Amino acid sequence: MTDDALTTRISPAALEAFIARAFETVAIPPSDARSIAELMVRADVQGSEGHGLFRLPQYIRRIKGGAVNVKPRIRVERESAGMALVDGDNGMGHLVMRFATARAIEKAKQAGIAWVGVKWSNHAGPASLYAGMPAEHGMIGLYLAVGNANHLPAWGGIDMLLSTNPIAVAVPAGEEPAIVLDMATTVAAYGKVKTKAQRGETMPEGWMMDRQGKPLTDPSRANEGFLLPIGGYKGYGLALIFGLLAGTLNGAAMGRDVVDFNADDTTPTNTGHSIVAIDVEAFQPLAEFRKSVDALIRDLRGSQRLPGVSEIRLPGDGSRAAREDRLRNGIPLPPALAASLAQLAAELKIQPLG
Amino acid sequence: MTDDALTTRISPAALEAFIARAFETVAIPPSDARSIAELMVRADVQGSEGHGLFRLPQYIRRIKGGAVNVKPRIRVERESAGMALVDGDNGMGHLVMRFATARAIEKAKQAGIAWVGVKWSNHAGPASLYAGMPAEHGMIGLYLAVGNANHLPAWGGIDMLLSTNPIAVAVPAGEEPAIVLDMATTVAAYGKVKTKAQRGETMPEGWMMDRQGKPLTDPSRANEGFLLPIGGYKGYGLALIFGLLAGTLNGAAMGRDVVDFNADDTTPTNTGHSIVAIDVEAFQPLAEFRKSVDALIRDLRGSQRLPGVSEIRLPGDGSRAAREDRLRNGIPLPPALAASLAQLAAELKIQPLG
Repeated sequence: MTDDALTTRISPAALEAFIARAFETVAIPPSDARSIAELMVRADVQGSEGHGLFRLPQYIRRIKGGAVNVKPRIRVERESAGMALVDGDNGMGHLVMRFATARAIEKAKQAGIAWVGVKWSNHAGPASLYAGMPAEHGMIGLYLAVGNANHLPAWGGIDMLLSTNPIAVAVPAGEEPAIVLDMATTVAAYGKVKTKAQRGETMPEGWMMDRQGKPLTDPSRANEGFLLPIGGYKGYGLALIFGLLAGTLNGAAMGRDVVDFNADDTTPTNTGHSIVAIDVEAFQPLAEFRKSVDALIRDLRGSQRLPGVSEIRLPGDGSRAAREDRLRNGIPLPPALAASLAQLAAELKIQPLG
Repeated sequence: MTDDALTTRISPAALEAFIARAFETVAIPPSDARSIAELMVRADVQGSEGHGLFRLPQYIRRIKGGAVNVKPRIRVERESAGMALVDGDNGMGHLVMRFATARAIEKAKQAGIAWVGVKWSNHAGPASLYAGMPAEHGMIGLYLAVGNANHLPAWGGIDMLLSTNPIAVAVPAGEEPAIVLDMATTVAAYGKVKTKAQRGETMPEGWMMDRQGKPLTDPSRANEGFLLPIGGYKGYGLALIFGLLAGTLNGAAMGRDVVDFNADDTTPTNTGHSIVAIDVEAFQPLAEFRKSVDALIRDLRGSQRLPGVSEIRLPGDGSRAAREDRLRNGIPLPPALAASLAQLAAELKIQPLG
C-alpha cells in the first residue's frame, strides 16, 4: 500500500515468527499460533494489508478481553453427504476456517461438491485465503462471510444493519494462473476509508453517504455516514443474501446481532462463514476444464482495449503481483504499523519484529 | 410495464392456452407445450415482461430455424451424492430447467445440498423462476446462468466477451414473504435498453459506454457500445465468475462461444445454468430459520429512512406486487406486443389471443 521512503520491508519468515510469539503470550497453543501466523502472513504476502498483520494488535486485545476462546474445540455439529455445519467454539477464525475448508475439500472428493457452513467463528482474514484452498486440489472454491461490523444500511435506510459481506471465488486454470475474485459488496471496504483518513486524503464520491443522503468525501467524518453498496439496490441485495447464506443459515450473527469487533473487545462475535468446494472432475475431465479456462483468460486478456487502457486484468492479478513482489522483496511495513507493533512487543514482553 | 391507455389486460389462463397452442404448431408435444406456457406466464405474472410472453415470437422463430430440439431427451449425464450434470439435449430451457431443479430438490433432501449443472439448454426465462422452486420446499434456491448474448466486455476492454450473467437466490421466510433476489451483473439488462429505444427515451449515464469510453445515453445507438457492469471491475468479476460456474464448469457456452439468440435463428446456444438447492433443515430446524429470517426482514423494513424515502424494500417485493396485481387484473398487453402476437397467430394459423 504505502511504499513511501519510511516504509521498511520485513521477511515473511520473520513476520510469521513474530506473530506466533505474540499469540503464545495470550495462551494460544504453539501449533495453533503458528497456523494463525502462517495464514496472516499469507494475507500480507498477497497484498491484503487490511486483513493480515495490521489486525494483530486488535486480535490480541480481543483475546485479552475474553472475546475469543484460545483453546476451542472446533467440531462438526451436523453433517450430510453434501454439507457440514461446523461449530468453531469461538476460536480464532483462521483455525476454524482452516478446519472447515479441509472438511469441504475432503467431502467434495466423495460427493462432487460440499457446502460447509460455520458458526461461532471469528474474523479469519481475507476471503480469498479460503476460496483458494480448494483450487489447489483442482476444485472451485467459493467463500461467503458476514463482516464483523455493520457499515451498510438497507437501500433507502440509514440504520446500519448489514456489513460489507464479501464473496471470494477461486477457479483453477491450466497454464494460466487461477482466477481469484475477492470482493466486498460495498464500493469500498471500510479499511480503505480508514487508510484515507490516516493519510488525510478525501474519498471519491460514491464510497459513502451521510444520513441526509449526501455524498460524504471527508473520511474523518466516516462515523457520520455509511458505505454504499455496488450497483445501488443490487449490492444491497447481494450483501443481504450473502449474509443469509453465511450467517442466518448457519445460526451465526447477522443483522442487528453483528458485533462491531473494532469497537468491542469483550463480546464473542459468532461470525458466520460458508465455504463451498466444487470438484471439477465430477463435472468433466479436469484437464479439459483447465484448457477451457485458459482459453477464456487469453481471450479476455487479448481483448481490444478502451483508449488509455494499457492492459486487461483478470480477478486475482493484483494479489499475484503483490505475492511476487513480497516474496522477493519482503512485506512492506509502513511507519505507523511498525510503531504499533513495537508497542505491542513491549506490552507483551516479546522479542520485537525484525 | 407500460400501463398506458392502449394497454389491455389478458387473463393468465387465456395467455397460457395461447402460448401452448403456438408451441404445438411447431411440433412440441402438448404436455411440454403446456409446461413451457405455464412457466412463461409465471414470468409475466411476476412482472418479468422481458422474459415471458415477449419472447414467444423469437422462440417460435428459432424452433422453425432448427436451432432448438422440440423432442429432447433430457437426462442426467453425471451424478454424485451432492451434484448432477444435466444434458438438456438442446430442448427448450424451461423444460430443461424444470427437470434440473426437480433433481436438485430431490437430491438435496438426501445430501443436505445439491448443485446441478446444466448444458445444452436454451433461454429459460427469468432466473427467479427456478431459484424460487426450492424455496417452496423449505430450501434456499440459488441459480446462475450464462446470458444468451454478449453485451459486456472485460473491464477496460471493448470486445464483448461476457453476458449479463444473472444470479437469483430465494430464501424462504415464515410469516413474511420469501426474499427473492434476481439480478443481472450489469447496471441495466439489455431488455431495458430496448424498451427505452422503443419509447424514444434516453438512458441515464452509467448504463452503457461507447467504444471510446464515453457515456452512451441514446438507446438507438446501443449497437455502438456495451453495457456497464455493477460496481465497475467488481461486476465484471461477478459476470465472469457466474459464467464460469454456469457455463465453463458444465461444458456449456461461455465467452466467445456464446450465440446471440436475438440475431441468430439457426444455431443451438448450448446455454448453461446451475441450480443449487440447500435444505435448511440440514443446518437447523426450519421453523427457527423462518423466525430468524422474519426478524431480519422486519428489522430492515423498520429501518429509519433517508429523507424522501417512503419505504424500505426487500428483494422480491417488486415481483410480488406485480403478481398480486396481475392475478387480480390480468397481465398487461401493450399495443406493440399485442400486434406482434396477432401477427404470430395469423402466421401459425391458430386462434388469436383473447
